[in-house]
This record gives sequence, C-alpha cells and structure tokens, in this order.
Amino acid sequence: MEILRTVREMQERAEQVRLAGKKIAVVPTMGALHEGHMSLLSLARANSDFVILTIFVNPTQFGPQEDFEQYPRDFKRDEHLAQDADADVLFYPDVEEIYPPPFLTYVVTGEVAEVFEGEIRPTHFSGVTTIVAKLFHLTKPHVAVFGQKDAQQLFIIRKMVQDLNFDIELLAGPIIREGDGLAKSSRNAYLGETERKNAPALYQSLKAAADLIKKGERDLQVVRDAITAILTAGSPAQIDYVAFVDPSNFKNVDKLEGKEVLVLLAVRFGSTRLIDNMIVPLE
Amino acid sequence: MEILRTVREMQERAEQVRLAGKKIAVVPTMGALHEGHMSLLSLARANSDFVILTIFVNPTQFGPQEDFEQYPRDFKRDEHLAQDADADVLFYPDVEEIYPPPFLTYVVTGEVAEVFEGEIRPTHFSGVTTIVAKLFHLTKPHVAVFGQKDAQQLFIIRKMVQDLNFDIELLAGPIIREGDGLAKSSRNAYLGETERKNAPALYQSLKAAADLIKKGERDLQVVRDAITAILTAGSPAQIDYVAFVDPSNFKNVDKLEGKEVLVLLAVRFGSTRLIDNMIVPLE
Repeated sequence: MEILRTVREMQERAEQVRLAGKKIAVVPTMGALHEGHMSLLSLARANSDFVILTIFVNPTQFGPQEDFEQYPRDFKRDEHLAQDADADVLFYPDVEEIYPPPFLTYVVTGEVAEVFEGEIRPTHFSGVTTIVAKLFHLTKPHVAVFGQKDAQQLFIIRKMVQDLNFDIELLAGPIIREGDGLAKSSRNAYLGETERKNAPALYQSLKAAADLIKKGERDLQVVRDAITAILTAGSPAQIDYVAFVDPSNFKNVDKLEGKEVLVLLAVRFGSTRLIDNMIVPLE
Repeated sequence: MEILRTVREMQERAEQVRLAGKKIAVVPTMGALHEGHMSLLSLARANSDFVILTIFVNPTQFGPQEDFEQYPRDFKRDEHLAQDADADVLFYPDVEEIYPPPFLTYVVTGEVAEVFEGEIRPTHFSGVTTIVAKLFHLTKPHVAVFGQKDAQQLFIIRKMVQDLNFDIELLAGPIIREGDGLAKSSRNAYLGETERKNAPALYQSLKAAADLIKKGERDLQVVRDAITAILTAGSPAQIDYVAFVDPSNFKNVDKLEGKEVLVLLAVRFGSTRLIDNMIVPLE
C-alpha cells in the first residue's frame, strides 16, 4: 500500500491509474477506522480495480464549538487496518496541503444543508461538500463509497454529484452495528459507561417504529410517540430531532404514504451526539 | 466537427479522448462568437490535441433585470466559425439538460465575488463558477482557456481551480480590440451609433493611464483623474467604477507600488455596460 501525502502525488498517481484503464474507487474518511469503514472498503474493492482510502479530519466541517481538536486520531492503527482491507493507496494529507490560505471557494447546497444536522451545525455541510469535491478532484474516482449512517450527508453528496455533473457513481454502504444495535461510529468512543449502556435505545426505537409501520400503523404521531418513549425511558437522553423524511427529496413528510420513509434520529447523551436512521418500506 | 448536446454524450466522448492519451482543451463561451473567442480557440488548438468549444447562455449568471433573453444567439453562424477554428467538438446543451430541477448546488468564492462586477451583479459570479465547474466535469479538460477581458472572472475561476484542486491548467487569452481600440464583446452589438463612437474612450483612458505610469507618475489620484477626464469628455458615459487592483489578490491598492497594477473600468453608455482592463507594469 502506498501512502501519499501531497496534492501533486495523489493527482499524478490517480491519472496514471486511469490512463492504464483501471477503475478507481475512493472511500473518504476522517480516520479512526471501525467496522463501518471496513465494510465501505470491501464495497470499494468489489466494485473497482484500485482502492483509494482518504484520511483527513476536515476542519471546515466542524463548528467553532465542536470536537475538531478532540476527534480521535490514530494513524498507525488506521494504516494497519487499511492494509488489512487491501487498499492500494492511503491518501493522508496535512491541513495546510488541503487548505492553503487564502481559501475562498466553497460548494454549497442550499436549504437541504440547513435542516436536521445542518440546523444544529450550520456550516457543517458546506464543509463536507467542499472537501468531498476536492477529494474527488484529487483522487479522480469512477466510484465513491459513503455510509448510509450519515443519511443526510449521503443525500447531499448525491445531489452535489448530480448538480455539478461529477462523472462518478456513488455507492452507499449499509449501517454496521454493534451486537446490541448501536451504530458504529468513531464518536462512540466519547460515551461514558452508563451512556454506552443507554445508547442502543436509538436502534431499538427505530426497530420499534419499523415494526409498528410493518403492522400497518400509519399515524405519524403514534410512531413518533413510540420512538420518543423508548429514547427517554430510564435514560437522560436529550432528543435533538426525530424526523420522517421522503428519501427522494429529504423533506419532512406529513403522511406515511408512498414507497418508503426515512426515519432520522439525533440524540445527545451528555455532551456526545449520536445519529442513526432507518429506511422503512411502506408498501 | 461533432456537435454534442447531452451530458452523457459529452462525458463519454471526453473520457474516450482522455483514455486515448490525448490532451483536451476547452473554451467555454456563451456563443455570439467574435475574434476574441477565435483567438481563444487558436490558443486552445496550440496547446492540446482535442479542442472542445462549449456554447451555453448560462441563465444563473444573469440577474433578474439583466439581458438573458436578449443576449445575442446565432447558432448557425457560431457553428461555421467553430468549424473554421478547427474545433473537434461543439458542446451545445439546452438549459434543461444543464439545470434539471430541483437544482441546489452552487460553487461560491466569497468576498472576491462581491466587489466590482459582483457588487453590481450580486449573483453573477456564483453562476459563473457553478457553470464552469459543471463544464469542467462535462468536458474533462487538461487545459481551459478564458479571456483576459473578463479579468475578475478569470481571477475567480483561477481561484476556484486552485481551491477545489481541479487538475486543469488555465490559459488566458489577451484582449482583442477593434481598430479603434474598443475591446471585442458580444454586447458591443447593443451600442447605438453615437455610443459606438464614444466607446473607444475606455481603451483611450487605459492607455493614457499606462502612459502616465510609464512616465513615472505614482499618484493614484492623478491617474484616476486622467481616466475620468477621458471617459467623460464629450460623452454621456456613466462610470460604474475605475479601480486599481493588485492582480495577485484582486484587492484595491492604495499605492502604485510592486510589480504591476491591474486597472479596471466599467462604464455605461445608455443601457449598455462595457468593461475593459489593462495590466500596467510598475517596475
């Protein structure tokens, strides 16, 4: 596995690989790799000839009060995991290499970036779309792989790819969970012992909602109440939002109808914010 | 010369050409081709193996009160000129092909897009950077050619290319002028007879400024007054701005010092707005 650290090296290598007629897949990450990322790397491997893993803790997607400094970083561990996953290139640039000052250009996606996660983290998604556009230009992929866990991020990146005519196929990897249902996340490391014990409530509440809907429940308030009851039962969880959106446009639905609904959760346990989601069929 | 009209066709053709190891140059235009565009096509031809001319009157760079509807369009004439210039592909998409609704994603460049042209045309440059990013993804060029006449546009596109890591070399074509010095522009067609007679004042004032500076004048106000005097002598020209900027950051200078200064003009003759500029060496 090659480790590349500069813009120039990465672009030259990607260009070589493309000219050789090989298909490139990129998996953009912030490191602190876990089984979720490993499953994205498998998906990349299965759908390409050349896998690029990028590790970059992107400052522009963190707000001023957020955890940019504390975000877990362990390059040696990540390097071994990338090797195990059979990545061809690990791209691991410095912040100065990616954002040489003065940096002026951002990719923005309007109102879909201002709701849910974007309401709580106002500059988050412009940071995400900007770094992803840059990483696409740096790694020149045919295929890019993102996790379904960050559902709004996935929707926004898909919209950016369509709107800006990136000639890139997006693949979404399913949410990977712990044995008790907690979605894998680098931020799970922040959870205290009791918080960790309560955190599976997110998945339990999503599963309960899916069960209700499967049994024919179509009253949105009934489903919402069931979710809230599980999230708050015996735990000090603070709910940021419970939302029901149309996966085709990421807008709130006011009725449970159509093909499917995407249920979104964001919940705080102490200072740790967890998100989770589930696509529930309605037909 | 091939004429391509869809996103899919254009991307497939560009990909083929790149895979064959050929170097692509793109010249993005809004049509109404004149000798200025022809010189950009020559520059493209001289620096590549495969020249793509794009013709697209881009609605997102026009304000609501501007001339999108009246902007001159003559595809048959443009087609012949493109053929004369030995373009390999003419990409000529419909608005619906480029902006399928809902369109949410824009490329923005902050404060440099809010001064000079951007102050008078607030959404202009986000429209420009967005369409240029899209055209880059559609035509996959190694080289892109723009005219020096739109100096701020050139600066902003260069900044976007750097900031977003487009792996594209930008070439700037010099300003092409009529015999009397008026910079070639598709909008010159709007000028009435008297306005056309007065319009060369822009170039005359720039030349007078350059002569003064060459002779050692370093008082900015003296140079500015000389420009204003020529622009307003015997003509009803209305000055939008006369500006002196540092070409490295596009910021106003308050002293004539350093390597060079870029003098920018925007002037109205009746309802027609003309811009012109000149890079003047200071050493």
